[in-house]
Amino acid sequence: MMTGDHVAVPGVTLVLGGARSGKSRFAEGLVTALPGPWTYIATAQAWDDEMRDRIRQHQADRVPGWSTVEAPLDLAAALVRHGQGPVLVDCLTLWLTNIMLADQDVPTALAGLEAALAARAGPIVLVGNEVGMGIVPENALARRFRDHAGRLHQRLAVLAAQVFLTVAGLPLKVK
Amino acid sequence: MMTGDHVAVPGVTLVLGGARSGKSRFAEGLVTALPGPWTYIATAQAWDDEMRDRIRQHQADRVPGWSTVEAPLDLAAALVRHGQGPVLVDCLTLWLTNIMLADQDVPTALAGLEAALAARAGPIVLVGNEVGMGIVPENALARRFRDHAGRLHQRLAVLAAQVFLTVAGLPLKVK
Amino acid sequence: MMTGDHVAVPGVTLVLGGARSGKSRFAEGLVTALPGPWTYIATAQAWDDEMRDRIRQHQADRVPGWSTVEAPLDLAAALVRHGQGPVLVDCLTLWLTNIMLADQDVPTALAGLEAALAARAGPIVLVGNEVGMGIVPENALARRFRDHAGRLHQRLAVLAAQVFLTVAGLPLKVK
Repeated sequence: MMTGDHVAVPGVTLVLGGARSGKSRFAEGLVTALPGPWTYIATAQAWDDEMRDRIRQHQADRVPGWSTVEAPLDLAAALVRHGQGPVLVDCLTLWLTNIMLADQDVPTALAGLEAALAARAGPIVLVGNEVGMGIVPENALARRFRDHAGRLHQRLAVLAAQVFLTVAGLPLKVK
Repeated sequence: MMTGDHVAVPGVTLVLGGARSGKSRFAEGLVTALPGPWTYIATAQAWDDEMRDRIRQHQADRVPGWSTVEAPLDLAAALVRHGQGPVLVDCLTLWLTNIMLADQDVPTALAGLEAALAARAGPIVLVGNEVGMGIVPENALARRFRDHAGRLHQRLAVLAAQVFLTVAGLPLKVK
Repeated sequence: MMTGDHVAVPGVTLVLGGARSGKSRFAEGLVTALPGPWTYIATAQAWDDEMRDRIRQHQADRVPGWSTVEAPLDLAAALVRHGQGPVLVDCLTLWLTNIMLADQDVPTALAGLEAALAARAGPIVLVGNEVGMGIVPENALARRFRDHAGRLHQRLAVLAAQVFLTVAGLPLKVK
């Protein structure tokens, strides 16, 4: 475990929240408060119509001035390529899902992400879903996902200078 | 979307919380701290014994001095009819469930609720369940419900002067 | 209901959090900040390999200097036996699960736990899972569990001098 090996990076902000809690909108506001151009790193893979609709809706909600980069799996490389200007990563949860569905090793992917974050100069806002406050899922894969997501958030919270939990569109400052 | 079109209404308070988090009790305390008479707007429909037991338990837990109004669907009309004194709406989650089960259009119902809230003079406390912090439900209807609930809470949080999240019976002030 | 009959006990701290939210680690830090020796009261029963792995991982994560006591059911008696030094109870959620699986009466068990807490002299940190912020479970036993867990947390929060909600390894102070 690398937890504790890192100190907080001034430019890293972690925004967690439940489904439809306004976390993406809040995170976008944090980025657009900085001088542009802004890079939106999308981790979504449109594998069905419901997901395609969600992606389209998210894009329609965003103001102009963004360039969009798709990084469903190699998020670390995308962060290195876009190392200077303000970046929004939306979202960690889909990235983790993609890593797991691709049968990649989660701790290795996480270590790569941490290294890329520590090496970046520009400010970055990472969005993730809080998924651990319900009843234990009956599905073993869902339990494993929940464990990985929780560990991912804990590790990134160590790196982050600021952490927020959004509730009904409003931020609770956790760090 | 009407989000942002409204300014905060001084008399509107939103209380969110998980199951058995003490949100109703906390909300009742906010209302009974005001001079009565108090109106309890119940949105519950007793469609099975479990629900009937919950309603009876909630009523037994309440102190005397309340008049109860049932509004499983037309919450906006009930708010207009009881526009002056302190009102408790318990809860938004059951109201949304009823709207969806009755195949009514959720955005239309929400717009009606927002208009009724903006037009009221008296103080009001709205209670809702936080349902978005678990694993994505496998059931498509549950996912749609979760999306609607999240948007409902975000929209009402814009209108509200105060927003709380209850945890173990204790309020976290979010706004 | 005994809620309200108790005043806050200076030495009782309640740490709630979602799955993999860092609640155990945070709670252990609260205990080890006090002079030892420290007693770890484990409520886990290893009924399958997944659980055995979790227990082993938790033990490996802990620093030396702890003595471990197992109390899957009679938590109150364990608290009385270890009434002086700093104690960590990890966790309430498994204890409640064990009580329900053993068909014991939950309110009776809870009253016993409250009495044991009120009678103790030494500091104690109780860890519990927040399980109520997801969609209503389809499973009736899960709904009953969720109700019992919420009531348990509310009752212990009345007794506690401090209550925290951990998010991504970071504590939100609720009381």
